[in-house]
Amino acid sequence: MTPVVVKFGGSSLADAEHFLKVRDIVLADPARRYVVPSAPGRRFKNDDKVTDLLYACYEAAEDEDKLLSVFGRVRERYEQIIAGLGLELDLTEQYDRILGAISHHAGRDYAASRGEYLNGIILARLLGYDFIDAGTVIHFAENGSFDAELTNAILSETLKRHERAVIPGFYGTMPNGTIKTFSRGGSDITGSIVARAANASLYENWTDVTGFLMTDPRIVDDPRGIDVVTYKELRELSYMGASVLHEDAIFPVRVAGIPINIRNTNEPDSEGTMIVSSAEPTMTITGIAGKKGFSVINIEKDQMNSEIGFGRRVLEVIENLGISFEHLPSGVDTMSVILNSHDIDPYRQRLLDGIARVVSPDSLTIEDGLALIAVVGRGMVRTHGTAARIFKALAGADVNIRMIDQGSSEYNIIICVEEPDFEKAVRAIYEEFV
Amino acid sequence: MTPVVVKFGGSSLADAEHFLKVRDIVLADPARRYVVPSAPGRRFKNDDKVTDLLYACYEAAEDEDKLLSVFGRVRERYEQIIAGLGLELDLTEQYDRILGAISHHAGRDYAASRGEYLNGIILARLLGYDFIDAGTVIHFAENGSFDAELTNAILSETLKRHERAVIPGFYGTMPNGTIKTFSRGGSDITGSIVARAANASLYENWTDVTGFLMTDPRIVDDPRGIDVVTYKELRELSYMGASVLHEDAIFPVRVAGIPINIRNTNEPDSEGTMIVSSAEPTMTITGIAGKKGFSVINIEKDQMNSEIGFGRRVLEVIENLGISFEHLPSGVDTMSVILNSHDIDPYRQRLLDGIARVVSPDSLTIEDGLALIAVVGRGMVRTHGTAARIFKALAGADVNIRMIDQGSSEYNIIICVEEPDFEKAVRAIYEEFV
Repeated sequence: MTPVVVKFGGSSLADAEHFLKVRDIVLADPARRYVVPSAPGRRFKNDDKVTDLLYACYEAAEDEDKLLSVFGRVRERYEQIIAGLGLELDLTEQYDRILGAISHHAGRDYAASRGEYLNGIILARLLGYDFIDAGTVIHFAENGSFDAELTNAILSETLKRHERAVIPGFYGTMPNGTIKTFSRGGSDITGSIVARAANASLYENWTDVTGFLMTDPRIVDDPRGIDVVTYKELRELSYMGASVLHEDAIFPVRVAGIPINIRNTNEPDSEGTMIVSSAEPTMTITGIAGKKGFSVINIEKDQMNSEIGFGRRVLEVIENLGISFEHLPSGVDTMSVILNSHDIDPYRQRLLDGIARVVSPDSLTIEDGLALIAVVGRGMVRTHGTAARIFKALAGADVNIRMIDQGSSEYNIIICVEEPDFEKAVRAIYEEFV
Repeated sequence: MTPVVVKFGGSSLADAEHFLKVRDIVLADPARRYVVPSAPGRRFKNDDKVTDLLYACYEAAEDEDKLLSVFGRVRERYEQIIAGLGLELDLTEQYDRILGAISHHAGRDYAASRGEYLNGIILARLLGYDFIDAGTVIHFAENGSFDAELTNAILSETLKRHERAVIPGFYGTMPNGTIKTFSRGGSDITGSIVARAANASLYENWTDVTGFLMTDPRIVDDPRGIDVVTYKELRELSYMGASVLHEDAIFPVRVAGIPINIRNTNEPDSEGTMIVSSAEPTMTITGIAGKKGFSVINIEKDQMNSEIGFGRRVLEVIENLGISFEHLPSGVDTMSVILNSHDIDPYRQRLLDGIARVVSPDSLTIEDGLALIAVVGRGMVRTHGTAARIFKALAGADVNIRMIDQGSSEYNIIICVEEPDFEKAVRAIYEEFV
């Protein structure tokens, strides 16, 4: 049976009650053969995440009393889970070995990784699945980057010997045998890597939210969820500030053409968000994301268009300062460069001087306080009225549009507005389409 | 009295009847002190323009019979005008000198320029104004370019000695004493130069149309005229295909801050179009212009935005082939370059190879058959609903928008559509605003 790989986030494994929900979910579908757990997350507001306690253990490595005290809280979390699940499982030897390692230079990443490691052992026992230590199958290269090819070779061979297994997320092994973790949220990456190696039909990423939302709930009350989103749409939304999966967590399954399903452990009947390579166009938009903190360099010069190399010379000045530009809208005698304000802050005068030198503009100004909004939707180009609806909504909300950029991308329109108009612009677009 | 400089086009001076209209216009305002005439234009469809007859004389310079025959028709045009005006004016000596010069290597430009020269003599007599031969006041440099500073110095001194004068358009003198003409339509340039040298309060350009039209009458039936347009708006419309004044005809008065009034000799009560440096924003658009024949290079690459220098490297390839780009809209992982299809035709493969080499894109295509439409209006940024109305109109007309570019220019939105949609898109936008 083609496996489904399931990853559970920290809040889905915070206590015994959640472990039972996870067990029910995994066992409900026999295809769910490989399970990637995070460490126990918060059970309530202001609770500790186990990973944070483990970082605190590492900080306390030189102070035995403090180490024992903090590690005691870690131990207590796991013992509560084991007791709550009624498992016959004694982790004393594990705890001792971890404590010993932390006090003997196993390192900060090692300490942090034990949250997933221990959770994996418990979950494997609960499910009756094999336990595969991620340290034996996930490998990093000398330079600290993830070694995708080595990992895929070892992991796919290993999985062939385990019909059903739990592989803890977040960590792997360096060539020198030490443990290294992915960046926080790295269990998403492990899940994606396992899905690729298992040649899974689906990668389910179970969290405490019901999929992705069409826009930021801090701006729009209770926004609608997204049913289906393509990788490309997701990338546009993510780049423009939507908090979704980390790029690195998407890459392995994207390459392998495996869809991702974002689901809610607490609402297993809800279908969540499906992330796919391609999907039928829809008649509406997929999502709205945006960020503040942009600046625009406005360049005016009579007959600019007849100067071959004008744009290249401007971009070269920016590049030489190590800055990326976001957009380069142009009129007949005008060119604007939209950049991240933070990026240009140290170089404002050098940018102006450099551009003035290479293109001798008639007028050259920098203006701050702009926000970019991406309206993303794979049906946008085919649905002729989308741009009209967006601009009607913005006009109705009295939003001043400073720039529009719709390029070859079939799935987005990027609009630049002034920062004070940002939230009302997002709300106006959302309300037009929902 | 601060002078007004008036220029009359060829159709305004095609016959005696039109000369009388011109006389009435000039004498109706005593400020109209300097008059720049073109050569007689067509009186009816398929009639000859005198300038074309003079080019034919030049071509026939080696064939005396043919030269005399063609020049006879030129002579007849002027004699009809003189007779129709009832003037006592004998141009025999002029005709003979011109014929002699044409057969003695005075050159092609000399031949062509005699149309304005003779018309100037007749008009000066009709008005009772002094005649100033443009050859004595309009000067070109050795390299053939117009010598603005020398001309302005000589011309402004000359005008001080003539309270009222006719200065023929279209030609001037090279440093070696030969006659050189501006490009066709060059009387507009002479008028502008005279207006600058006279420090005129206004440059009136009298033609056979009532000012500029909001859009192309071949696309929209009987489009409304433009009352007031700024130089910048005019430049955008002109760049995007509207047929308005030549750039060179605008530059001298633009620099001097002198407004231009485009008027109709046959409808002197109509106020025509006023071209000004700046004007109050209006609540509607000023004009719509557009052109077919564009291509787009679509570049896709995952994580493109994190590659500093991506855009610069693409533009460098284009620049190295000597090509200007029109627009560079970009998404998160996409960049498009819009170019004139004609410009890229000889270099398609080299463009693709060059871009592929410098940025290693995931996908790279060229698509032809696109049209650009510029909607121009100085009130557009302040009038929040303009973009909405444009896109609503296009959606209603079922037009597929391929790109939108609204940059720092406060006075235009540029839209890219597929060529088959071009005319209906222009009509839809026009009808939305008029």
